[in-house]
Amino acid sequence: MNEIRIFSPATVANVSCGFDVLGFCLNTVGDEMVIRKTNKKGIHITKIEGFDLPYETELNVAGVSALAMYKTLEVEFGFEIEIYKKVKPGSGIGSSAASAVGSVFGMNELMGRPFNKTQLTEFAIKGEAIASKCEHADNLAPAIFGGFTLVKSIAPLEILEIPSPEDLYATIIHPQIEVKTSEARAILPKEVPLNDAIMQWANFGSLIHALHTSNYDLIKNSLHDVIVEPYRSQLIPYFNEVKNEALIAGSLGCGISGSGPSIFTLNKGIEMAKNVKVAMENIYSKTNIKYDIIVSKINKEGIKILKP
Amino acid sequence: MNEIRIFSPATVANVSCGFDVLGFCLNTVGDEMVIRKTNKKGIHITKIEGFDLPYETELNVAGVSALAMYKTLEVEFGFEIEIYKKVKPGSGIGSSAASAVGSVFGMNELMGRPFNKTQLTEFAIKGEAIASKCEHADNLAPAIFGGFTLVKSIAPLEILEIPSPEDLYATIIHPQIEVKTSEARAILPKEVPLNDAIMQWANFGSLIHALHTSNYDLIKNSLHDVIVEPYRSQLIPYFNEVKNEALIAGSLGCGISGSGPSIFTLNKGIEMAKNVKVAMENIYSKTNIKYDIIVSKINKEGIKILKP
Repeated sequence: MNEIRIFSPATVANVSCGFDVLGFCLNTVGDEMVIRKTNKKGIHITKIEGFDLPYETELNVAGVSALAMYKTLEVEFGFEIEIYKKVKPGSGIGSSAASAVGSVFGMNELMGRPFNKTQLTEFAIKGEAIASKCEHADNLAPAIFGGFTLVKSIAPLEILEIPSPEDLYATIIHPQIEVKTSEARAILPKEVPLNDAIMQWANFGSLIHALHTSNYDLIKNSLHDVIVEPYRSQLIPYFNEVKNEALIAGSLGCGISGSGPSIFTLNKGIEMAKNVKVAMENIYSKTNIKYDIIVSKINKEGIKILKP
Repeated sequence: MNEIRIFSPATVANVSCGFDVLGFCLNTVGDEMVIRKTNKKGIHITKIEGFDLPYETELNVAGVSALAMYKTLEVEFGFEIEIYKKVKPGSGIGSSAASAVGSVFGMNELMGRPFNKTQLTEFAIKGEAIASKCEHADNLAPAIFGGFTLVKSIAPLEILEIPSPEDLYATIIHPQIEVKTSEARAILPKEVPLNDAIMQWANFGSLIHALHTSNYDLIKNSLHDVIVEPYRSQLIPYFNEVKNEALIAGSLGCGISGSGPSIFTLNKGIEMAKNVKVAMENIYSKTNIKYDIIVSKINKEGIKILKP
């Protein structure tokens, strides 16, 4: 096998109370990429469709993660990468992460899987870092492992796979505004009240327990973010209105996806997810803000090979 | 049945990364109490052995929680309470909690269990409050439910029962010094660095996952407290030395039990727990500080009726 086509999924990071550590994987949106072994040594990006991204390997997220792996290989061949970009950069659903994991996953498959998933994440972190200016894995881990993942630490990299109920669906709306990651970071306080932090870890521990026990009521009761959302939601017009309508429509919880501007919800069953979609659309459709909206089951498989 | 004798267990609250919300139950130390239905209305404390505690119902922890329940009953009889106090007040292993839950558990049994465990905890909170000057349930919940409990919130009271592996043992040393709860609270900062808070909830989420999956390595890897221990450990002489020796002896983790001065460890199996006991004793036996030390399996049953 000298060439594969892969699907590299979009992801939701933070998940309210799990700021900076939790994420989950989607299945209805993702990049497609072709990875090809070539006689020419090195990593070469030969095609990019969908969005305007750099062809220079060292400037391209997928290129940088690929190089990080390639440097460890000491092989006499190289790899070509074609990127069919579908996850919009800056949308807040792991666009750079999808690129970063795609190249290394594909190369690993073509090589006969010398690396495990945590090692793939290590390489992908290098690519993600050039997009987000810091090393984090809360979108990478769910893209590679699927389902819900908890990034316990970055150095050393420790990723936990958290089980989740079968009937969990995300509805995610992407208002077409720009929220700069740097601004989303700068708006956060350096210190937080101890009592709020306690409430956050009570909710986070409860959410982990709720996912383990498929307890939808407790998922609903745990999806609160008292630390970050009060700040970042100011950067997203109509966030409170969207959240309010989503919860009235029955959603288990609603929060900022990554650093925004996308807003995610979690829902029990496809019907609730669709009702919540209507409720969320109702807010932005009355404004001048354009939006995309998707419904997706939680993707437990993660990144995968597409049949030719 | 007009009289029962009960065992009301000691407990460990906080459990490193689970500050203010997590606790677990012990089985080798606990108060014994006799609860008796009487014709005389009201709550009457008729015997106290072991430690010098007030007989006035309104000043006694067990009395106050009993009164909280009694007021809801509207009955023509009353209850007598005998307290055989074995959990030393101020030791940091839930002495007041053991008293507070004992009376209401016993009364509930004599009444044919009109209240569930969460309701019993509600009553017990009123008793605990007169001892610790604030309403909290992180010792009460494990005493009543057994095993590990997560107090998700106080108002409304939400308690989660977290499963735990079978072979988990605590070794707990109680240096005979006084740490005032008020001082232990005053030493804590009102605000904490966001990055530390993130690390804490990463560890706490990991610990919940580790308990669910009986993953001892991950329990070990999660039992860290970067928020509270750096402050409160200053109040406990030789804390760092005891912790260091316990970890060298193989313990999964070591931290402050409640607000101290007791120091707890968690261990895989009775042998490790005994080795850790020797290691912890080695520190205090070289000082002028007297100590008690116990080894206990995690008590999954919680408070219970003793056979006559």
